[in-house]
Amino acid sequence: MSDFMHVTFLLEALKEAKRGRGYCSPNPAVGAVAVKDNQIIASAWHQGAGSPHAEQRLLSQMPSHLSDVTLYVTLEPCNHWGKTPPCVDAIVNYGINRVVYAYKDTNPVVRANDTPAYLSRHDIEVIHHPVDEINTFYNSYRHWTLTGAPWVTAKLAQSLDGKIAGKGGKRLQITNQTCAQFTHEQRHTCDVILTTASTILHDDPMLNVRLKGAEQSKPVAIIDRQLLVHPSAKVFQYAGPCHIFYDATISLPQPIENCTYHPINCDDERLNLQSVIKKLGELGYHDVWVEAGPALFNALHQEHFVNQTFIYIAPILLGPEATSGYPLPFVPLKPDSIQWHPMDDNMLLSMLWANDQLERVCLQG
Amino acid sequence: MSDFMHVTFLLEALKEAKRGRGYCSPNPAVGAVAVKDNQIIASAWHQGAGSPHAEQRLLSQMPSHLSDVTLYVTLEPCNHWGKTPPCVDAIVNYGINRVVYAYKDTNPVVRANDTPAYLSRHDIEVIHHPVDEINTFYNSYRHWTLTGAPWVTAKLAQSLDGKIAGKGGKRLQITNQTCAQFTHEQRHTCDVILTTASTILHDDPMLNVRLKGAEQSKPVAIIDRQLLVHPSAKVFQYAGPCHIFYDATISLPQPIENCTYHPINCDDERLNLQSVIKKLGELGYHDVWVEAGPALFNALHQEHFVNQTFIYIAPILLGPEATSGYPLPFVPLKPDSIQWHPMDDNMLLSMLWANDQLERVCLQG
Repeated sequence: MSDFMHVTFLLEALKEAKRGRGYCSPNPAVGAVAVKDNQIIASAWHQGAGSPHAEQRLLSQMPSHLSDVTLYVTLEPCNHWGKTPPCVDAIVNYGINRVVYAYKDTNPVVRANDTPAYLSRHDIEVIHHPVDEINTFYNSYRHWTLTGAPWVTAKLAQSLDGKIAGKGGKRLQITNQTCAQFTHEQRHTCDVILTTASTILHDDPMLNVRLKGAEQSKPVAIIDRQLLVHPSAKVFQYAGPCHIFYDATISLPQPIENCTYHPINCDDERLNLQSVIKKLGELGYHDVWVEAGPALFNALHQEHFVNQTFIYIAPILLGPEATSGYPLPFVPLKPDSIQWHPMDDNMLLSMLWANDQLERVCLQG
Repeated sequence: MSDFMHVTFLLEALKEAKRGRGYCSPNPAVGAVAVKDNQIIASAWHQGAGSPHAEQRLLSQMPSHLSDVTLYVTLEPCNHWGKTPPCVDAIVNYGINRVVYAYKDTNPVVRANDTPAYLSRHDIEVIHHPVDEINTFYNSYRHWTLTGAPWVTAKLAQSLDGKIAGKGGKRLQITNQTCAQFTHEQRHTCDVILTTASTILHDDPMLNVRLKGAEQSKPVAIIDRQLLVHPSAKVFQYAGPCHIFYDATISLPQPIENCTYHPINCDDERLNLQSVIKKLGELGYHDVWVEAGPALFNALHQEHFVNQTFIYIAPILLGPEATSGYPLPFVPLKPDSIQWHPMDDNMLLSMLWANDQLERVCLQG
């Protein structure tokens, strides 16, 4: 089998994996296809923690014990008991001839058990074939398994003059529908949306996914130091489970339904962001999508907790009295990589950060 | 001859025309190629007012009286005496069989004389074959012939937060080398660079063209209400002829060498911009490239004197204390067209303005 065919089938498996992205945490999203005589005979993706893994779902669709089947899977198959039995045993039991996987699992438990050796001992050929797109797909999983912290993506929608709202914070539609759709795609693929009480009090957003006429709920985490958010806020109607981060020194009132409360230490009248980020990792979230105002956006960047930044730019001016997206003093922005993507008449700036500090903090902390 | 071949040869003529762009005013830049048996046998461009037109230079290169020659020319050939004899007579005298031109001249004198009818009367086939690129090439010529005003292009180089300099206007290199080269290309193709005394006093720029290791001088126009610019400014060393616009009520001191002085009326302690723009048109400049600070940039936009805007954006933040590029109150930016062009890690936003107000003002004024 040529490298080209390996990549082709692994990218088909990636398509499957993407169907589960944003709905699997604390598991990684995984896709798999089974190939016989150069034809895909079955495909599957992992649909969420507690449900069968992609490999198990795949094998269950196939006639039993077909010969000469290759399994293409985005991630190294698991080899330990979690909520479901190890995939390697299902692969051995079925009689798969060959396993090609793209991403070597960075989870220490998987690493320790050595899947390739286990499968080889059962006369299964194992090929590790890395693919750039799949490495990128697992950026957040790698980051989470290595640091315990989630991959944080933050966005800001601004005018040419760096403004994000009108005078006195008046909400304005600054960027276009293409950017709005991109936001919903990001909500869709993240594990949790992080916002602030101030955004909820000011804008009362639904923070759900609205794509192609369908709506989906996502977990939402709210930084609400003084527990100011009211149960009538729309987010509680449209979100999945909510997490509320509040000042550990205040006493918890009657909890809002569907909300889990997390006490956090305060620094200078602000919740300690490192504790918030670590807690989100402990909750099993790999991908955090931040939708809040410039205060949180800038603080997360200043403290180096952001892995990827999206800045939407509309070619309009809002004038000197409008609200700046960058109210803090000089912040040197030195991203690891910069990409620009046209969004019709708007522009999307994407920046990736090395974030060494975050990795150091979390590995030690 | 197919449409495809017409376009091909007209685009070859455009390449020639571009060689003269920025050095022909008050004439338009024109390029021409002669084609026989589907081969280009000669090519030429207009090198500047007072020198032979492209058509004349082309014919002078060719063996006399070749038969079956088609002349491709970017602009409708001239049919009147200016500083040089009419091109139509040279075409007739040579015995050209066919003339294909892309842009119908908007100059009222050429229009009135009707070149196609004149050539047809001499048994020359005349084809008008418009080409989008060539229409765009003559945007400024069209604008100047119809309104008397030059086509004004203004640029600003900014950070993400809309800043164009450090605290207190401190000069900073904000955008990258690709943007700097673009600036030199714009200087090269414009007829005159418009700047202000404040830019010269603050930055002391050379304002010449530095491209591919070579330097070229360009005419420079300076808005210097109070005649503050000193003869030692670099611009007077590196520029071509300079024009100084000053307050008509003050008396002219010893003039600086190579400078022409134009008294202009003042409105509220500022020179009347409409008079400045009209005067640049009267001086025969079609293309004005503005390199100045945010005051002139914003005033030209607010008064609708800009035809095209280039905003260079660097993905950096300069912070709230840096100097804003947009110090004026709310200006609605509603350009006719918007395009984004990547410049390595910087971005170039190009906006075209309908500028109806300018056309109205100039046609009436």
